[in-house]
Amino acid sequence: MTSVAAQHDSSGDVRPGAAEGESGRVEFRVSPDRYRHWRVSCDGPVATLTMDVDEQGGLVPGYELKLNSYDLGVDIELYDAVQRLRFEHPEVRTVVITSAKPKIFCAGANIRMLAASAHGWKVNFCKFTNETRNGIEDATANSGQTYLAAVNGTASGGGYELALACEHIMLVDDRSSAVSLPELPLLGVLPGTGGLTRVVDKRHVRRDLADYFSTRPEGIGGKKAVQWRLVDEVVPRPRWEETVTERAADLAGHSSRPGDAAGVPLSPLGKTRDDDTITYSHASARLNRDTGSVEITVRGPQAPPPADMAAAARQGAGFWPLAVTRELDDLILDLRTNAPELGTWVFRTEGDAGQVLAYDDLLLANAGDWFANEVLHYLKRTLRRLDVTSRSLLAVIEPGSCFAGSLLELALAADRSYQLAGVFEDVDPDAEPAAITLGNINFGPLTMSNGLTRLQTRFWGDEASLEAAGKRQGAPLEAEDAAELGLITFAPDDIDWDEEIRIAIEERASFSPDALTGLEANYRFAGPETLETKIFGRLSAWQNWIFNRPSASGPDGALRRFGTGQRAVFDRKRV
Amino acid sequence: MTSVAAQHDSSGDVRPGAAEGESGRVEFRVSPDRYRHWRVSCDGPVATLTMDVDEQGGLVPGYELKLNSYDLGVDIELYDAVQRLRFEHPEVRTVVITSAKPKIFCAGANIRMLAASAHGWKVNFCKFTNETRNGIEDATANSGQTYLAAVNGTASGGGYELALACEHIMLVDDRSSAVSLPELPLLGVLPGTGGLTRVVDKRHVRRDLADYFSTRPEGIGGKKAVQWRLVDEVVPRPRWEETVTERAADLAGHSSRPGDAAGVPLSPLGKTRDDDTITYSHASARLNRDTGSVEITVRGPQAPPPADMAAAARQGAGFWPLAVTRELDDLILDLRTNAPELGTWVFRTEGDAGQVLAYDDLLLANAGDWFANEVLHYLKRTLRRLDVTSRSLLAVIEPGSCFAGSLLELALAADRSYQLAGVFEDVDPDAEPAAITLGNINFGPLTMSNGLTRLQTRFWGDEASLEAAGKRQGAPLEAEDAAELGLITFAPDDIDWDEEIRIAIEERASFSPDALTGLEANYRFAGPETLETKIFGRLSAWQNWIFNRPSASGPDGALRRFGTGQRAVFDRKRV
Repeated sequence: MTSVAAQHDSSGDVRPGAAEGESGRVEFRVSPDRYRHWRVSCDGPVATLTMDVDEQGGLVPGYELKLNSYDLGVDIELYDAVQRLRFEHPEVRTVVITSAKPKIFCAGANIRMLAASAHGWKVNFCKFTNETRNGIEDATANSGQTYLAAVNGTASGGGYELALACEHIMLVDDRSSAVSLPELPLLGVLPGTGGLTRVVDKRHVRRDLADYFSTRPEGIGGKKAVQWRLVDEVVPRPRWEETVTERAADLAGHSSRPGDAAGVPLSPLGKTRDDDTITYSHASARLNRDTGSVEITVRGPQAPPPADMAAAARQGAGFWPLAVTRELDDLILDLRTNAPELGTWVFRTEGDAGQVLAYDDLLLANAGDWFANEVLHYLKRTLRRLDVTSRSLLAVIEPGSCFAGSLLELALAADRSYQLAGVFEDVDPDAEPAAITLGNINFGPLTMSNGLTRLQTRFWGDEASLEAAGKRQGAPLEAEDAAELGLITFAPDDIDWDEEIRIAIEERASFSPDALTGLEANYRFAGPETLETKIFGRLSAWQNWIFNRPSASGPDGALRRFGTGQRAVFDRKRV
Repeated sequence: MTSVAAQHDSSGDVRPGAAEGESGRVEFRVSPDRYRHWRVSCDGPVATLTMDVDEQGGLVPGYELKLNSYDLGVDIELYDAVQRLRFEHPEVRTVVITSAKPKIFCAGANIRMLAASAHGWKVNFCKFTNETRNGIEDATANSGQTYLAAVNGTASGGGYELALACEHIMLVDDRSSAVSLPELPLLGVLPGTGGLTRVVDKRHVRRDLADYFSTRPEGIGGKKAVQWRLVDEVVPRPRWEETVTERAADLAGHSSRPGDAAGVPLSPLGKTRDDDTITYSHASARLNRDTGSVEITVRGPQAPPPADMAAAARQGAGFWPLAVTRELDDLILDLRTNAPELGTWVFRTEGDAGQVLAYDDLLLANAGDWFANEVLHYLKRTLRRLDVTSRSLLAVIEPGSCFAGSLLELALAADRSYQLAGVFEDVDPDAEPAAITLGNINFGPLTMSNGLTRLQTRFWGDEASLEAAGKRQGAPLEAEDAAELGLITFAPDDIDWDEEIRIAIEERASFSPDALTGLEANYRFAGPETLETKIFGRLSAWQNWIFNRPSASGPDGALRRFGTGQRAVFDRKRV
């Protein structure tokens, strides 16, 4: 496959993970004025995202991003662009993804980068790129921003997977452009960004044709690509521009996004960090290397909500639900990438539960408002990011906390929760006892990737408990009640509290990190499966395994040998 | 966890895979008179399967099967017993699984065996044990033979997973017996036989309680085990025997199995083999080590079906649908275990399509008959075994073949199918052209583990094609028609035929075996997920990964260090 083959350069090994100067940390905060790889242009209801990867713009040295191949840095910009289109451009109804390179749409993830990366880096990279593509589908499904892949050259591997995340795929018909998934024949791995799943489960390509397609490095173009459902249409080059314009306009016609609303600028996120702390306006994290844990505190709103969504929009990025979600989102991504050795995240909240619920109610009462809709879906996506994070999640519920409504989801997302029975007698015997509060928001919009709410998943197969919880909406639930209702795991009292929390964290740190990842990936998703859970569960698990095998990543494996002119050496035994 | 800990013995490493004398092959054929580890007793409608593992009876030397721990040999006997109860004992309505060892029900898979096994052996072993447990659930759901776990001592790991496959779990309440999944804390791996999935998805244990449970090596017993839904009831030892008898009788009361039918003895399967061939009455296999493939030929019936199911039962194990299914079942298991390096299986059939359909019709017309029901479900399970087999499956459809009805499922299970357009002009220009025939059986009972037929899975999201196929039932479809209907992949003519088949096999042999396993595991199961697909897709994929990681299987990993007194060494980075 020329496009992938041509990605090869002769530079030496590199271990991504170093970036952003001396700190060696990766930062996920970016803004369009700093993009190196993407151009965003808006023309009324149609925005165009043009991929024009800077070959020399790799996140770390050691590889060249030839032929619109990408690394994490390229995808961080894409994620930012997708987010900004939703919040800053209410007028945009169609987003066209296309390429500025001649004859090439996108060659997928950079192979030299993959070949040289440590296993954990590859897996984390695939997770983030998957989340970004799921976000593209979420914008199409829930935001009235429909994505159109204008594949104006060959799209191979991750390039085709990017197109697969779009609602409509147009391929130029020029006798050379094709779509392909060359990972198996060329690299001995799977397409890692949902390709296999979307081909059969979203586009309904017949399984035997999908099998054949995935073994053809040169891919499939022209009419056969349409017949096999790999793309929606092929268009001759002379009619390309006009047809893309026409389709974009058609798709825009089906959106209910407002034409006259002002966007909400995603102003720079305030963040300070040193080796041991990360601090935002409404969230902070303390990194405990001794115990292998991170203590995360999320603070509720400091003031009552604005009167309506118009006033909320005037608050812009400072609107508490949006602000706290952005901070959480950035924190999850930062810790995942930069602190993989801290295996347990401990969540606390601080603030007024009533205020949290008041903000939730404002959003729910205005779910038809584009901005409220965006905030709710963003919170949903951020919590889903937490669900697929390979860290043990604990929630610790103490007096003064505000695990209510949207913030209660943090406790429901946790693998275990501990709620103090009563108060800390030595600290403040007159404090209000630790409580959690269910809100309306816990019963609807914040679905997990299995399509169920966290409460539905928690009580999967136990309808009575779900109903019993439903009846207690709005009431502060102290530990005994919360435990009785099955909403928390344990309710130690003042005497046992410190010891129990300490043991839980220490014990977690003593277990095999890999086995914990597998355990949590299984327990967090009871019930039905969806495209998303298939990607994160089935597909990613197989890919993790394959990435770990000598056939791919050993010194003679396909990933390492790619481009050397030497054939990979395989152990022929099937497992 | 004492029971698991006590499994430890000090013998050296062993690599299972050698068995059955000099040949080094594993045989799956066994019969009760040769059981070393199980006792079967029948008392009217209640059968009891008593586990009494012979410590010295390991399949290969090098470990002792202490405390009712098991290896593949123990599970081969269990599988045989479950099958025989269905076919040979129509009167049995409840099957009680219990232990002959004092204070111990079953300590799970033998840890020394696992620690010393090659990766492929572990994965194949888990697959077979999973299939056997799925078979237990299938007997309960579809055969009127309800399984009751009489857990009369501690059930840990695979021991509890065996109980989880039963419909009702009774645990003795003696202040020492407990159920546990100690794999994560003790061995750094996951419970590999569906435990995680069944705990949350079948028994609806709350996810946070499941998390806690899976980190407690000592397990949970007594009333808490009931409160958490880990077991259905606990019974004090003094009332144990009478309560088991009572429950078994209760469960038997809900079955529709006949009280007066004669069983069908599963007489010894005729099989001859040498290094390159395996031959049965209706199936044969040629092992081609040069091309890394196996040529499998399945032959249709030699005579018309018997007049009715009574006559069929008189034919016993010789009744063609039962005979050919047993042969296929044994062949799949044999090749999986003994020929892992032969990565492509090529299926052919020979015989009269009309006869195949006539046998299918006899079964379908008598689906209410216990024997017809058993044969249909056995065929279903055997085809499911094929679906989860990590080999590339090709179907080759030539003149004289009988890919019709039940045998057409072999082509529908294949990753690709090739049907000759017309005839071999040089061989027999007057032959009937190669044809396939859809039967009623392709539209119903032979569901895959995703709950759909292979046709529904094939046409997932394409209802029109499924309907179009439905209209052509009973008609021989030549290559062009079959391709047009989407029932086959390719239809080469006489001139291209040999070359195309040869290239397909050679090309498959050139790909990474691991990547093929992942590809096929993803493409074979479009559409919805079930407990079974979750076990084989999500859970097994995670386990494969974990088995491959240094944290488990490295020299300092938990699986290798278990019982040495040394703590395992983990890379703390979460992936």
